[in-house]
Amino acid sequence: MKHIHIIGLGLIGGSFALAIRKAFPEIHISGFDKNDQHLEEAKYLGLIDEAVESPPVETDIVLLATPVDTLAQLLQELLEKVSAETLIIDLGSTKARLCQSLADHPKRAQFLAGHPIAGTEYSGPRAAKEDLLNGKVFIICEMEKTDVHLKGKAYELFEALNLKLRFMDPQEHDLHLAFVSHLSHISSFMLGKTVMDKMEDERHIFDMAGSGFASTVRLAKSSPEMWTPIIKENKEFVLEALGSYIAKLKNLEENIKGNDFEAVSRQLQAVAPLKEILDLK
Amino acid sequence: MKHIHIIGLGLIGGSFALAIRKAFPEIHISGFDKNDQHLEEAKYLGLIDEAVESPPVETDIVLLATPVDTLAQLLQELLEKVSAETLIIDLGSTKARLCQSLADHPKRAQFLAGHPIAGTEYSGPRAAKEDLLNGKVFIICEMEKTDVHLKGKAYELFEALNLKLRFMDPQEHDLHLAFVSHLSHISSFMLGKTVMDKMEDERHIFDMAGSGFASTVRLAKSSPEMWTPIIKENKEFVLEALGSYIAKLKNLEENIKGNDFEAVSRQLQAVAPLKEILDLK
Repeated sequence: MKHIHIIGLGLIGGSFALAIRKAFPEIHISGFDKNDQHLEEAKYLGLIDEAVESPPVETDIVLLATPVDTLAQLLQELLEKVSAETLIIDLGSTKARLCQSLADHPKRAQFLAGHPIAGTEYSGPRAAKEDLLNGKVFIICEMEKTDVHLKGKAYELFEALNLKLRFMDPQEHDLHLAFVSHLSHISSFMLGKTVMDKMEDERHIFDMAGSGFASTVRLAKSSPEMWTPIIKENKEFVLEALGSYIAKLKNLEENIKGNDFEAVSRQLQAVAPLKEILDLK
Repeated sequence: MKHIHIIGLGLIGGSFALAIRKAFPEIHISGFDKNDQHLEEAKYLGLIDEAVESPPVETDIVLLATPVDTLAQLLQELLEKVSAETLIIDLGSTKARLCQSLADHPKRAQFLAGHPIAGTEYSGPRAAKEDLLNGKVFIICEMEKTDVHLKGKAYELFEALNLKLRFMDPQEHDLHLAFVSHLSHISSFMLGKTVMDKMEDERHIFDMAGSGFASTVRLAKSSPEMWTPIIKENKEFVLEALGSYIAKLKNLEENIKGNDFEAVSRQLQAVAPLKEILDLK
């Protein structure tokens, strides 16, 4: 591999750039971000060697790290342009609609649908970290639809970046992510809103944040520009997860109203197995 | 000060023990926990010098770090027993009912209602940490009701432990804590339950926990034995906070169902100021 092109130079695109630079110091990295300031920062921070909108003809891999609602059109356009030796990998948080929109594309085999399970609540090129992806899970959907030869390049990249590969159906991916990730973000955003609307004195929020609030609401610092499209793209599964969450909260509310604190206790106890699952990490 | 007695030797009581031992190496610390295993562990770990149920007559300060529903009766009993030179400080997460139950007690002046804003999701004596309280906020309610001379001892302790004092009305305390802390715990417990009920394959939860779930659900690892009584004691304010949270989630759900993603975006954007408030920490 000699040339990688990255579109979207924020937290994820930038972290890929830094990790690739470390793993393959000789690779030339070009890239683009439609936010001029981010593009300037990416150059200044050394994320990319060259700022160019379209991937040069010699590009081995194009990585797409833009908001999920931009990916389908971007992929359609890029697949027309790139050479037969170029693989395009998207890194978006939703997969079903995107895979469906490209299902019948004559160059479908030059696309690989991916999703790195990594991130922080910060965004933009300055949030990029060289070790963000190290040891993280990378989900691949419809692996069988990607060209065998081009897949070789992808494996070389994923192995060098120490990603743990998992294979999943796009629907299965979106369902699981709706419950585990997208719902976590929604619960966090709305928790933040509930507290802010009630407490006028910011000093009190600050003083009490150590009581569990700071970590629970951490994701509410995430970028709304990134998260609104994820909710939109994954609407059905997000609604399923959100509906289930609201039902559980209402059930607990009823128990509290009815002074059934044994039921409250049982509900809190029921989460105990999660302790073991998460402490494995 | 020569003698401190601690009842309840878990995360909070144990962390006070360790911090006091560091700040005042010469102080004798006695203590009790009705859980035999915790009491043994507390001795083994050196949290206390002596295991004894009732505070000895020479005790300067008794710290109460037991579940909130035990505090009122414990205080009634202890106030009868202790000498006039002993101050009793509770460290519970709710304050209104407790303060009310002691309002007319003839020895009310020997009691100080406190709440350290510190904790982790772990519990028991082994979870205690010497630096858990360092630099943390300590809320005091109805400070004016505590004897001036005894308050001197409390200030000496709080200063040595580097606690930042805040003064609040018990109702105000409980209202703010319901929104900032108690709601965070409830949202976290129910998020954990929603995910566990849906996903049968624990491997998937584990693989995807890095997507924001692990931190958002961290508080669900907290002790249900501690949290059920907090919800019960602070029922009215918890219901207010929970009702407000559910209403916001339902509102977002309606926006998503109605494809009003501009409204979704506005709601996520509205939390932006929180970023600054929390990043001060």
